[in-house]
Amino acid sequence: MNRQANDAAARMAGIEPFHVMEVQDRALELEAQGRRIIHMEIGQPDFSAPPQVIEAAVDAVRHRPLGYTPALGIPELRREIARYYRERHGVEVSPERIAVTAGASGAFLLALATLVNPGDEWIMPDPCYPCSRHFVRLFEGRARTLPVDERQSYQLCAADVQRNWDARTRGVMIASPSNPTGTSVSAAELGAIIDCVRSHGGFTLVDEIYLGLSYEGSLATALALADDVFVVNSFSKYFNMTGWRLGWMVAPARYMREVERLAQNAFICPSAPAQYAALAAFLPDTLALLEQRRLEFKRRRDFLLPALRDLGFAIPVTPSGAFYIYAGCERFAADSEEFALRLLEEAGVAITPGVDFGSYRARAHVRFAYTRSLEELEEGVRRIAGML
Amino acid sequence: MNRQANDAAARMAGIEPFHVMEVQDRALELEAQGRRIIHMEIGQPDFSAPPQVIEAAVDAVRHRPLGYTPALGIPELRREIARYYRERHGVEVSPERIAVTAGASGAFLLALATLVNPGDEWIMPDPCYPCSRHFVRLFEGRARTLPVDERQSYQLCAADVQRNWDARTRGVMIASPSNPTGTSVSAAELGAIIDCVRSHGGFTLVDEIYLGLSYEGSLATALALADDVFVVNSFSKYFNMTGWRLGWMVAPARYMREVERLAQNAFICPSAPAQYAALAAFLPDTLALLEQRRLEFKRRRDFLLPALRDLGFAIPVTPSGAFYIYAGCERFAADSEEFALRLLEEAGVAITPGVDFGSYRARAHVRFAYTRSLEELEEGVRRIAGML
Repeated sequence: MNRQANDAAARMAGIEPFHVMEVQDRALELEAQGRRIIHMEIGQPDFSAPPQVIEAAVDAVRHRPLGYTPALGIPELRREIARYYRERHGVEVSPERIAVTAGASGAFLLALATLVNPGDEWIMPDPCYPCSRHFVRLFEGRARTLPVDERQSYQLCAADVQRNWDARTRGVMIASPSNPTGTSVSAAELGAIIDCVRSHGGFTLVDEIYLGLSYEGSLATALALADDVFVVNSFSKYFNMTGWRLGWMVAPARYMREVERLAQNAFICPSAPAQYAALAAFLPDTLALLEQRRLEFKRRRDFLLPALRDLGFAIPVTPSGAFYIYAGCERFAADSEEFALRLLEEAGVAITPGVDFGSYRARAHVRFAYTRSLEELEEGVRRIAGML
Repeated sequence: MNRQANDAAARMAGIEPFHVMEVQDRALELEAQGRRIIHMEIGQPDFSAPPQVIEAAVDAVRHRPLGYTPALGIPELRREIARYYRERHGVEVSPERIAVTAGASGAFLLALATLVNPGDEWIMPDPCYPCSRHFVRLFEGRARTLPVDERQSYQLCAADVQRNWDARTRGVMIASPSNPTGTSVSAAELGAIIDCVRSHGGFTLVDEIYLGLSYEGSLATALALADDVFVVNSFSKYFNMTGWRLGWMVAPARYMREVERLAQNAFICPSAPAQYAALAAFLPDTLALLEQRRLEFKRRRDFLLPALRDLGFAIPVTPSGAFYIYAGCERFAADSEEFALRLLEEAGVAITPGVDFGSYRARAHVRFAYTRSLEELEEGVRRIAGML
């Protein structure tokens, strides 16, 4: 026992706070003082769930008992997700391989609890979504972050994985499109990474939360390339259901019994109202609406990207998905966290400092989210221009 | 590396399947063949969420954006839970100490991720709810189960804890009322346990999921006895909201920053529709309805308990809460699992074998749940009598 009585577990020291919280707390204060803040830090769509989803929820809540569901989700939703893979991505995924979860968060918990042994190392890029590191730490693994930059579109490549694999490495985590960079991994490179990981007997976990929000042609799911990968997806972003907390994981068939056992014990089941609501997410009308909304995100990107470049932000790689722009701000400040707070104070624009996504050149970058209307983004750009 | 390529993590071997699943699968088969099965194995109320909760959900779903909420839950729900402690239990609990979670499952995950270091031992009774062991294992701790029997109402006492505490022990988990035994720990004994654990610098975690379903006077919450305990509760059982997946944890104030950081990373937030719906769970009309339902559970217990005793089941301690009766079946069978399957085949009654709750005298016990109507319970008893 090398800890004091009543100390929290050692892992808690590895779970870092979100620096953007400081920005958001200060933004709330300023708003309470009557100031209008333009929010370009928020990682959720400004659209609510589609009306079809809302009416399906109302119907379920009024007319279904909403007891526990099967631990991996109701069979009809697992089938709908499988159908979506078939019709949207042209790939056959058995419903048996799909676990419906409490958000992508629940999917990460399931996947990493199933796979990570204490001391295992998981390779992931820096910058990346910070929870990726934390989920590995939660189960006593260690994130091994590899710096990535614009020369490889802020994504890992197979050569990185090969060069850095050692005896303790057990897996690779990739997000495509990525939060915070909005960049994607090509199918060819992703296939090469999966091959490399397979050759070492490891695991590839692909975060496809933003896969539906791709703007340069349809991006391939990793499931089209291999059936021994773990894929995480969500109803939050493309389907605009953030607060409903629903996501899913696709796992190789041989792990599903263990995944189910773990889900029974750790979650019992995902939210029943959300599951019945989500059935309506795959209706043709709903998908048509979601495509309109995707195009609206694209319009916003197509406005914000050149506008930020014109202002002098360094954005060497065009982000092709998600709703983020990862921008170099070295021209304006030595420290992006200080820059983010100054931008909030002086211009009333909230953004996320790079330190939330890793350490490699993090002080030279900030993340802009285009999850607000075009008018608000225009106002944000005007304000930033005024300050700079 | 002492595992094969592609093996799941070692912890998965410690997550046991629920044996009742075998009973339930066979019950489904029999029902598909047209046979009527009496379900006395099910751990959820047969009541749906109260109508006030349903209408609050409809209103929220139709009129609120339902984006991410704060990680620890919406402030108004945390305040309502605090008010409930004040008005129902006469105890002041600051809303700041309350974390709203995805079911009690989410609360256990948060608590144990925050507290369990690899190798830590947690004392808990055998029999107990199997997930208690599994949550500790998930974070590389070890459950140290102590056999408890009728002489101590199937609950731990302070002397057990004191006698078994050693250098690796870090905490104690207690459920009161307990699943599977329906028995409770008296306030005096619980206070003594908490004092003992505190004297060793450890943690007491009390599962109060069934606290609202007490039938012999109001049972004290551990929060009335101490403010350095971790308490888990749920909207599933007393509030009849199982499928909604909403629960809460109360933690000592000094851990809340870490708990919040973990919740942000591991969950983002609990289900927003469920949270807004749960606000209506504390309305006077709702609570009046829930009290009627509690009395209905009491009526069922008061029928089933003597009926099972008359049949020859050994139930030496009157269960005072939850909706379970833990019954000795040695008179009828050497193996309770075999007995449960025979009862299903021959009498069409589904119950849970004791092996789902531990190993101490587990083959001599089964669990009956009274989560079905009095008429169904009467039919169940007739069938069991017929077989025996």
